[in-house]
Amino acid sequence: MTNLADIYPDNQITLREVGLRDGLQISTGFPTTAGKIEWLEMEYEAGIRHFEAGSFLPPARYPQFADVRTIVDAVNGLDGAHSVALAINQRGQSDALASGVGELTCVLSATEEHNLANARCSRSETLDAIAKTVALRDNADHKPLINVGIAMSFGCSIAGTVDPDMVVGLAEQCLERGADIVGIADTIGYAGPRQVNELCARMSDLCDGRYLVHLHDTRGTAIANAASALDAGARIFDASLAGLGGCPFAPGASGNVVIEDLAYLCQTMGFATGIDLQKLIEVRAILAREMPDEALHGAIAVSGLPKITHWRAA
Amino acid sequence: MTNLADIYPDNQITLREVGLRDGLQISTGFPTTAGKIEWLEMEYEAGIRHFEAGSFLPPARYPQFADVRTIVDAVNGLDGAHSVALAINQRGQSDALASGVGELTCVLSATEEHNLANARCSRSETLDAIAKTVALRDNADHKPLINVGIAMSFGCSIAGTVDPDMVVGLAEQCLERGADIVGIADTIGYAGPRQVNELCARMSDLCDGRYLVHLHDTRGTAIANAASALDAGARIFDASLAGLGGCPFAPGASGNVVIEDLAYLCQTMGFATGIDLQKLIEVRAILAREMPDEALHGAIAVSGLPKITHWRAA
Repeated sequence: MTNLADIYPDNQITLREVGLRDGLQISTGFPTTAGKIEWLEMEYEAGIRHFEAGSFLPPARYPQFADVRTIVDAVNGLDGAHSVALAINQRGQSDALASGVGELTCVLSATEEHNLANARCSRSETLDAIAKTVALRDNADHKPLINVGIAMSFGCSIAGTVDPDMVVGLAEQCLERGADIVGIADTIGYAGPRQVNELCARMSDLCDGRYLVHLHDTRGTAIANAASALDAGARIFDASLAGLGGCPFAPGASGNVVIEDLAYLCQTMGFATGIDLQKLIEVRAILAREMPDEALHGAIAVSGLPKITHWRAA
Repeated sequence: MTNLADIYPDNQITLREVGLRDGLQISTGFPTTAGKIEWLEMEYEAGIRHFEAGSFLPPARYPQFADVRTIVDAVNGLDGAHSVALAINQRGQSDALASGVGELTCVLSATEEHNLANARCSRSETLDAIAKTVALRDNADHKPLINVGIAMSFGCSIAGTVDPDMVVGLAEQCLERGADIVGIADTIGYAGPRQVNELCARMSDLCDGRYLVHLHDTRGTAIANAASALDAGARIFDASLAGLGGCPFAPGASGNVVIEDLAYLCQTMGFATGIDLQKLIEVRAILAREMPDEALHGAIAVSGLPKITHWRAA
């Protein structure tokens, strides 16, 4: 069984590249398999060690993830790298277990309304399914971490306001059912920094800082929300190169929090990430080449690093 | 004499539109006078009450501010609106006092190196000049507020790291010389949120919350820095529509913090601003028309407002 502390060490902030999955979820174009491998290998060279490689979904409907096994293999071939994949049904989960992926992500919605619309079952049924996934993993040869991402943790596209008590309660129930790690996701970019601080402080208590924070920059608050999460003890963040990944509810809006801007934020706050920021910025050239129609977001790649050793940097 | 508390009330956050000055400082194109007036009048309708109208500089070299008196008049003609103008030398200050502007901004650099390069004199000489400006104002018929903006408060393009003790000490000296209000400026976008929180907490103690925070989004941290400043008790912010105003040291980078995104941030944090966000967003059409070559920054204008009454909103 994988040790969570080995995958997510305490002595630095972990930034997980989710552009290869969440970043491609709604995009029309996507990189070639070779382009994806070049992307992740360059990011590995820049210090990234955690990659969401793709999603186990029918390749006919989701051609962008048809090569997920190859991408998982590519990540697993890099010393010390950790592969993650999404699998939202039993078929996908069986495939994921067989793939050798290091972490399998399941999804639960914070609200009953969204879970019914998205997964076509109640949250209670999804929690039962999570227990089954854990059992499936426990009986499999290869035993990836089981991660549950709680979608709409900061506001729901259907139900609106989400009570933080509800999110913490669902996180507890996921852990009780054997999930190794849980995540709180601002799926549609509704969160503000005080809200993030409050929920993260409670999650930090519940999980000793080892939970995922998944932020979107739809409304320009992602870096502020990340700063607030860091202040509240969050240590693991999803992010994507150039903010890849939009929002189906906000055409043209930014996607995931920009990984290079988030790495810079950590630097200004004195947190180590193990990332060479200049090298990370250079990986954007792969995206520009492989996805020429995609907007590349982010500030630090345009402005360049400041000419100071930053205040309070480690 | 103008009462500071009337201009900057305690019961809400004040966002000052500086696009008409700082936003046009390095731009190649600029709006017509009629376009500027349409811009500020539409923003007034959206709830903005504070406008940096321009700079008193030689019109031959700075044609974008040739109409500064007309713009000051236009602001002063709106009930309850407050006009601000920059004046960096005695000639400009005399002109500003004669113009009827509500607030005159002087500049002091946080570092000796930058003050020498920018103002061609020592900080001590600039402080003496500020005392003279205050005396000039005290003897004038019209008595605007005197505001000193401390440039490079969070890091200097020449000297690098800036000690917060130095900034607080300079702010005290400005107030001792009769300045009504001081501002701390992240002129080149070097600041990170922890740094902002520390300096703002000290400024809040010094000035009872009534000081200006001037942020640039050069490195994508402006909204995070603003959130941090709000947490530390800051109540008055400079900002510009669509983030107008770049950075001479970072071609293509964002400029001032985006006023509509900052207004949205305040909303998510439960602070009142008196601003109708939807109306504010609509003013961007003026910029698009008047400055078609200028990049319009900002997220909330693209994404739209969330479909929730935000967590903890007032």
